[in-house]
Amino acid sequence: MANTTSIWGWGEADRFPEAEHRSAMGQWASALLGFSTGAPREPVPAEALELRPSRVSPPTALQSLCSTTVRDRAAHSYGKAYPDLVRGFRGEYPHPPDVVARPESEEDVAALLDWCGESGLALVPFGGGTSVVGGVEPPSDHGGVVTVDLKGLDRVLEVDPISRAARIQGGALGPVLNAQLAEHDFELRCFPQSYRYSTLGGWIVTRAGGHYATVRTHVDDLVESVRMVTPQGVWESRRLPGSGAGPSPDRMILGSEGTLGIVTEAWMRVVRPPRFRASATVFYSTWEQAVAGLRAVSQAGLAPTNCRLLDATEARINAVSADPKATLILGFESDDHELGPWIRRAVQLAVAAGGVCPKGARTRDAKGGGGGAASSWRDAFFEGPYLRDVLVSLGTIVDTFETACTWDRFPELDAAVRSAVQDALNRVCGGGTVSCRVTHVYPDGLAPYYTFLGPGREGAELEQWAEVKQAASDALLAAGGTITHHHAVGRMHRDHYAEQQPGPFGHALRAVKQAIDPAGTLNPGVLIPPSHGEQV
Amino acid sequence: MANTTSIWGWGEADRFPEAEHRSAMGQWASALLGFSTGAPREPVPAEALELRPSRVSPPTALQSLCSTTVRDRAAHSYGKAYPDLVRGFRGEYPHPPDVVARPESEEDVAALLDWCGESGLALVPFGGGTSVVGGVEPPSDHGGVVTVDLKGLDRVLEVDPISRAARIQGGALGPVLNAQLAEHDFELRCFPQSYRYSTLGGWIVTRAGGHYATVRTHVDDLVESVRMVTPQGVWESRRLPGSGAGPSPDRMILGSEGTLGIVTEAWMRVVRPPRFRASATVFYSTWEQAVAGLRAVSQAGLAPTNCRLLDATEARINAVSADPKATLILGFESDDHELGPWIRRAVQLAVAAGGVCPKGARTRDAKGGGGGAASSWRDAFFEGPYLRDVLVSLGTIVDTFETACTWDRFPELDAAVRSAVQDALNRVCGGGTVSCRVTHVYPDGLAPYYTFLGPGREGAELEQWAEVKQAASDALLAAGGTITHHHAVGRMHRDHYAEQQPGPFGHALRAVKQAIDPAGTLNPGVLIPPSHGEQV
Repeated sequence: MANTTSIWGWGEADRFPEAEHRSAMGQWASALLGFSTGAPREPVPAEALELRPSRVSPPTALQSLCSTTVRDRAAHSYGKAYPDLVRGFRGEYPHPPDVVARPESEEDVAALLDWCGESGLALVPFGGGTSVVGGVEPPSDHGGVVTVDLKGLDRVLEVDPISRAARIQGGALGPVLNAQLAEHDFELRCFPQSYRYSTLGGWIVTRAGGHYATVRTHVDDLVESVRMVTPQGVWESRRLPGSGAGPSPDRMILGSEGTLGIVTEAWMRVVRPPRFRASATVFYSTWEQAVAGLRAVSQAGLAPTNCRLLDATEARINAVSADPKATLILGFESDDHELGPWIRRAVQLAVAAGGVCPKGARTRDAKGGGGGAASSWRDAFFEGPYLRDVLVSLGTIVDTFETACTWDRFPELDAAVRSAVQDALNRVCGGGTVSCRVTHVYPDGLAPYYTFLGPGREGAELEQWAEVKQAASDALLAAGGTITHHHAVGRMHRDHYAEQQPGPFGHALRAVKQAIDPAGTLNPGVLIPPSHGEQV
Repeated sequence: MANTTSIWGWGEADRFPEAEHRSAMGQWASALLGFSTGAPREPVPAEALELRPSRVSPPTALQSLCSTTVRDRAAHSYGKAYPDLVRGFRGEYPHPPDVVARPESEEDVAALLDWCGESGLALVPFGGGTSVVGGVEPPSDHGGVVTVDLKGLDRVLEVDPISRAARIQGGALGPVLNAQLAEHDFELRCFPQSYRYSTLGGWIVTRAGGHYATVRTHVDDLVESVRMVTPQGVWESRRLPGSGAGPSPDRMILGSEGTLGIVTEAWMRVVRPPRFRASATVFYSTWEQAVAGLRAVSQAGLAPTNCRLLDATEARINAVSADPKATLILGFESDDHELGPWIRRAVQLAVAAGGVCPKGARTRDAKGGGGGAASSWRDAFFEGPYLRDVLVSLGTIVDTFETACTWDRFPELDAAVRSAVQDALNRVCGGGTVSCRVTHVYPDGLAPYYTFLGPGREGAELEQWAEVKQAASDALLAAGGTITHHHAVGRMHRDHYAEQQPGPFGHALRAVKQAIDPAGTLNPGVLIPPSHGEQV
């Protein structure tokens, strides 16, 4: 698969359409978005890339794991954020890793960590490389960087069918681990949009948002225990379904973004594939009614698997309704029982808030597999990033960001964010669109997810994007939100993250970093500000 | 209320029965337990207590908050563990706090912390004082100890009805905070057995087990944000329903047991009082079938509020059935919808595993309040600790401990723990009983809760108890359990906690302690081993 993976863009390289096709897509997008996308451009081809020579020579014992090819180093220079795509498209790779190492075992991981620690090299853990926050980008000012690509650690090692848990290596991609679990009739139901190209270890250290819109909203809740290689030895928690003994050790790993160690294995909570499903779509004339309906469902204790609200713009773009209206998509799933009472009550509540649920907008089926609307929706969801690559090639600025806030604050936050982003788009792009969906809900609040698009000026896209992104992040923080609900901090959100932290907690986090990784080997500059105030 | 609180025993002092009544209870207990409880003894009366003089003079500005009376100092010397009751009953108070301070505001708390930090005094945060692990016991080797009783911070400060959350001060006792919430038609459904005499802040820092047998098993999940006064300033997290920004700051406070700061406020997730309830009782001929039934219900995604399994001994002692059989108690509650489909499916699953659910053992009611079986059960639950005081006065050794493990390990753990405890009871008491109930369940495991009782020898009870407790704790750890599921670590479990920790996590935790409380002011010797290896 490595040979067909795009260096700069999403997924498989051959999924990037020819110019003619992209041009047609641009016309369609222009009509939809209300501004003209540009003429299709071509990415700098792999064979034209020139990188700074590697500054690092691996020791003999590790050479067989290490690559210094241009392709490998370029493909491990960035994640998949908008500025990553633009820089990759342009062939700009000023700070590639010096070495890309591919361990095949936990011993290899420990040996690589030892080597980097002893040699003063930075080690960047790399799962699928789908970070949208600069989480896998080498530091720009470091003397030597080794990126450790963990996808060789891809096995399901053990399945405990009694406790419904499986021991899985950290480098396994979503489909790779689920194919192995399927042999035991189990499934890890964690499907971030990056699912096909991201790894279990990556999900854990970034607190990835998964499949469930309620209750188990993050991978956090699916983790039973974690095994992590650190400079202070192996950090492995007991397999426990729950515990009250001191602060949770796993919760210190969740969100640590490769700054404390490398997750080599985890025991994960798995489930039988769903046998029953029920879903419904409810339409609203106003956003306020839609949010009220969403809240009513969220506070009823019904725990839908899917509880996704699209505003009218998102509904139009996603073509879920011809007459674009705010649209609430509800879904339940179970391997145990029929879901009629659950979906009926959820629809009742959603309709009582002013929604309309047409007859054809309800489905219930008692078979598994996930055919029908849910399946097409999921396919489209996973295809989304490919469309983004096309828009980048058309010079369009396109990005998303998400947050969370309590219900009482949402109207104000939503208005402030839309207004800040629209103003910035008008200012730097001469226009553009902002839209919102809600991806996860809680009894006490919700996680809105915003998309913005605007016309870029060739060569100035990164500066334009940065100004809009800054406006968005500032607005989120000012309105009481979090800088991220499920896309991590990385380098991109580090300053806003520091701002939203309880002050003494920042001390505590730096103390943990110093205790576990005193040499500062692991992912320097990500999550935690570098010590001594240097720029990384 | 302070005047009528028992110094050594549970709750209200006047709830301790007269000798004659206790003697009759002893005869009843002897018949039930199969061994003879002793003749009733009398606790050393408050007026006979003699304590070491206080070694500490509070500064003038704080004197109005401070007490050095014998009664206050004795009543703040221990929690409510078995050895605490015995020592208190005997009037043994070798290491009382020098001062008991009662802050009335967060400013008072900060001033007390400053004073202790500057003067080299130890500060022991004291909520309701119901710790069963030595969590509020002053260090024995410290030159001066100030116990800060937080019950003056007892207000509900703000209610957000939209987000269903309330800002509550850390010193509020369960009934005190819920009485205030009831004015807004809300409730904090967190009912540890200590509910009437323990505080919100205490629940948070000890990760108390609450009301829900599934999903929201600990207070952890009810916390929206926390405000804590630390030596490094105020640690306050944002109000967020969920976040993926770095490791959770709240999860570092949850379980910190007063070693990092004093929780002055928290935003808690509250609910409307239940309007619908459904419950059922299912009986099993064998423990194995009962556990299988429990697991089936736990893995079906139904999320019962109550899912409590008693073994035959517990069923007999609690008199839930005349013919003692393992007994599964199932309950659902909702403020939103009827629960017929939920309870029907849960009972189906429980019965399919070999259980019997007699006609009269199901109830459904659509009114609130909590009358009926659930209510009587809860009353009995809250009365339990009073019975323990009586048994202590009869010379009986009585204690409980709990753990958690995955389903696959439970048969082995359960057998090993029962056997280790029964052997120890036979050895040190010449007999006794061990019984088990399961209080919380998860898809991947369960939290069993053991009770042991044995005849004590006058004057040797503490040594006898310590040997049984050690056997129990060793067996838990050896079988893969956790040293505590919801009763915290304190001083009592500190060594076993260190043993179950991932090694590097121990470094991390000590680093956090050092960063936040470098002078070691806060609750020294609790949770974290004292530095420099001194005994505390």
